[in-house]
Amino acid sequence: MTTNSELDKTLKFLDDHQEESIDRLFEILRIPSISTDMKHKNECVKAADWFVKQLTSIGFKAEKRSTSGHPMVVAHSKGKGPHLLFYGHYDVQPVDPIDLWDHDPFNPKIEDSSNGKIIKARGASDDKGQVMTFVEACRSFYHTNGKLPCSISILLEGEEEIGSPSMPQFLENHSSELKSDYALVCDTGMWDSKTPSITTMLRGMVGDEVTITAANRDLHSGMFGGVAANPIHLLSNILSKLHDNDGRVTLKGFYEGVHEIPQVQKDQWNALNFDAKKFLSNVGLSNIIGEDRYSPLEKLWSQPTCEINGIWGGYTEPGFKTVLPSKASAKISFRLVGSQKPDEILKSFREHVQNNLPSDCSAEFIAKAGSGASTLEIDAPEIRAAKKALEDEWGVSTQMIGCGGSIPIGDHFKNILEMNSLLVGFGLEDDKIHSPNEKYNLSSYQKGTRSWVRILYNLSNG
Amino acid sequence: MTTNSELDKTLKFLDDHQEESIDRLFEILRIPSISTDMKHKNECVKAADWFVKQLTSIGFKAEKRSTSGHPMVVAHSKGKGPHLLFYGHYDVQPVDPIDLWDHDPFNPKIEDSSNGKIIKARGASDDKGQVMTFVEACRSFYHTNGKLPCSISILLEGEEEIGSPSMPQFLENHSSELKSDYALVCDTGMWDSKTPSITTMLRGMVGDEVTITAANRDLHSGMFGGVAANPIHLLSNILSKLHDNDGRVTLKGFYEGVHEIPQVQKDQWNALNFDAKKFLSNVGLSNIIGEDRYSPLEKLWSQPTCEINGIWGGYTEPGFKTVLPSKASAKISFRLVGSQKPDEILKSFREHVQNNLPSDCSAEFIAKAGSGASTLEIDAPEIRAAKKALEDEWGVSTQMIGCGGSIPIGDHFKNILEMNSLLVGFGLEDDKIHSPNEKYNLSSYQKGTRSWVRILYNLSNG
Repeated sequence: MTTNSELDKTLKFLDDHQEESIDRLFEILRIPSISTDMKHKNECVKAADWFVKQLTSIGFKAEKRSTSGHPMVVAHSKGKGPHLLFYGHYDVQPVDPIDLWDHDPFNPKIEDSSNGKIIKARGASDDKGQVMTFVEACRSFYHTNGKLPCSISILLEGEEEIGSPSMPQFLENHSSELKSDYALVCDTGMWDSKTPSITTMLRGMVGDEVTITAANRDLHSGMFGGVAANPIHLLSNILSKLHDNDGRVTLKGFYEGVHEIPQVQKDQWNALNFDAKKFLSNVGLSNIIGEDRYSPLEKLWSQPTCEINGIWGGYTEPGFKTVLPSKASAKISFRLVGSQKPDEILKSFREHVQNNLPSDCSAEFIAKAGSGASTLEIDAPEIRAAKKALEDEWGVSTQMIGCGGSIPIGDHFKNILEMNSLLVGFGLEDDKIHSPNEKYNLSSYQKGTRSWVRILYNLSNG
Repeated sequence: MTTNSELDKTLKFLDDHQEESIDRLFEILRIPSISTDMKHKNECVKAADWFVKQLTSIGFKAEKRSTSGHPMVVAHSKGKGPHLLFYGHYDVQPVDPIDLWDHDPFNPKIEDSSNGKIIKARGASDDKGQVMTFVEACRSFYHTNGKLPCSISILLEGEEEIGSPSMPQFLENHSSELKSDYALVCDTGMWDSKTPSITTMLRGMVGDEVTITAANRDLHSGMFGGVAANPIHLLSNILSKLHDNDGRVTLKGFYEGVHEIPQVQKDQWNALNFDAKKFLSNVGLSNIIGEDRYSPLEKLWSQPTCEINGIWGGYTEPGFKTVLPSKASAKISFRLVGSQKPDEILKSFREHVQNNLPSDCSAEFIAKAGSGASTLEIDAPEIRAAKKALEDEWGVSTQMIGCGGSIPIGDHFKNILEMNSLLVGFGLEDDKIHSPNEKYNLSSYQKGTRSWVRILYNLSNG
């Protein structure tokens, strides 16, 4: 076991080797491991190989494991004390629209900002930067003490941004190898740049791509317009009916499993004094949409959503083409809360489409793998240990928050490995994850790494 | 003036030189003069040059004239008798979706079909094939008689498929040069492959591209979904409100200027026994949409439409990206009838968009140049002369029909040059103009050319 002076030494090692740590982060940020685009398949393999090499260099027995999609990285370092499984992902979101980036998304750089130095690159925050905070914490233990403070396994996937399609089967196939005392997940955010947080509520997600086909070929809108069905009209009608005037989702059974959150939770969230107007004004908006009876934080953390993420059909190039297209498509995703069931939501959406389709038109669907929401017990011992560690590092109270995003892994760990997940991350609301000019605060990276050293220390000596 | 035996000789010349005529048509079909796409700008110039060369070779004084867009071709051949202005266009529609073509759209070929031989290529029908029927008719007169049968001017534009933005100004600048006794336009169709037709009603058109902007950048749908506006939702709602449940356009003032057509016209159209079910089943559909109180031919020829021609926004590549996009766009076009005013329609559409937009979102527009509908007097002498010529060639009655498409030139000729247009064309409903696998029946090409010989003969000797 490590001693308190070992903790200090481990933290000091980090402070003394910041530059090399940044260099390593930059190496992995330079690999464009975009999982949704099969053109980047080899880059995903390259990112996995890079992590295998890094983890091997700090005492892990690390391997790349193939799946039907992008490979997993699995690494083990046996020791005394609890067995922890750290999870992160090495894949990143696409970079389009590329012309809105002010630099090459895969050529990372450090810039000054009004909030201190920031690391700019696709994946700087989501999730390569966050994963590296943990890897670098392990490196520091390894170099300072010759070993890690407890048994640590690491599982990195390359399909998080596309809904982790290979994960459930992989966990089932390797359950005895991967089942641990609990999981550590670094893919969430802080309340603000000074306030560390543990995420205890995560929304789930399920998605669908719908393509509506009317005529069997593109038609001339002058020759057929007014008598033949237009699939873009049909799609617009179908999508416009997904919400009522109050912003409530109209799909049959959609709110089954959505529960009011306890008043104590509401009070705690209200005490955070979330400034939704400022939150929106940061992105050029001013109106809070959705049902008035929920606070903005409730909407983001404990209410489900239905969002259209993409739409296309007909002529979309510059100029005009008076076509009456054969097909129109949209990608829709649902954020889920409580015990909403992904399969039921998908079924209800597809029924809604079919019910609004004329008899001579058809619809095809491509599902995006779904997962339910998850809610953690805030009194669990690992949460208390992590809370204390974060407070020691950041000097302020740790907040228990929700997260509007979906990290299906928490759901999978619970259902397949019967294991709880501790969600600690250092992302910030303005990190622009999934958007052009993604960044990670240098303080998130450096204090994040120190935070993991403290958390591992507390968990090993708890 | 030509004599009847000269007519016979001119027709025989055509029959004796069919192969060379096809070769010339193939030459112009090989030039990908897609006007809407600036990448093809040079191909449009090449197509214009090709026509200048061809027309010069058959006695015309032909020139390419520059505009702020693609060039015009203007050619004159002075003679006795009436002065006719032939109009056509050398530009073509884009070829996407390219994977639905069963051959290279710009490598023309002749194939057998259940309805005789067909010429397959982009522009085979619209409008290169149709233009060439007139050019080849002139060639035949020139080679047989050493001259054309009357004064003929030719005006070919390269911007018809993008709404003829340069045409009004060009006609105003060259009105004394171009004003003729009347115009001949070959850009319309026959009632069926055996029945020649003169189009006496043409719908007008105006279009708009709308882009709705919500946030100033793409957002993560998990982080912002449910509180921040989604421009695809807004666009879907706006577009879905363009029609009521009966298929009637809801824009304020939209039906001002739309008149009931006379019963005699309805009776004539009803006598055509248009089989709308068959018309739709040819393209894989079975339901006739729109207001029940109008017959399908009335809907196509004398009722206005509002069609969405294209839509795009958010993530549209394979896979999923849970983005809440900043922008969403659509292209909309309106077919106009009666005295509907393009500018008023555009204004009403934009008001509809603005009225349905939240205060923190904005809309930008790009207008597509518009033109009103046109209706010809079916008793005019040039129409009677052409009617007789077509009946001599095809051996059956010539039908007076409407056209759902828009040929703004008729409107411009009337308004700017105070000149009526005779609309005769040999296109067929199954020509797949604006679609993959466009074709032109070989009989349309050959009998079309012979028809123009007869029409020019009748008009010159009328």
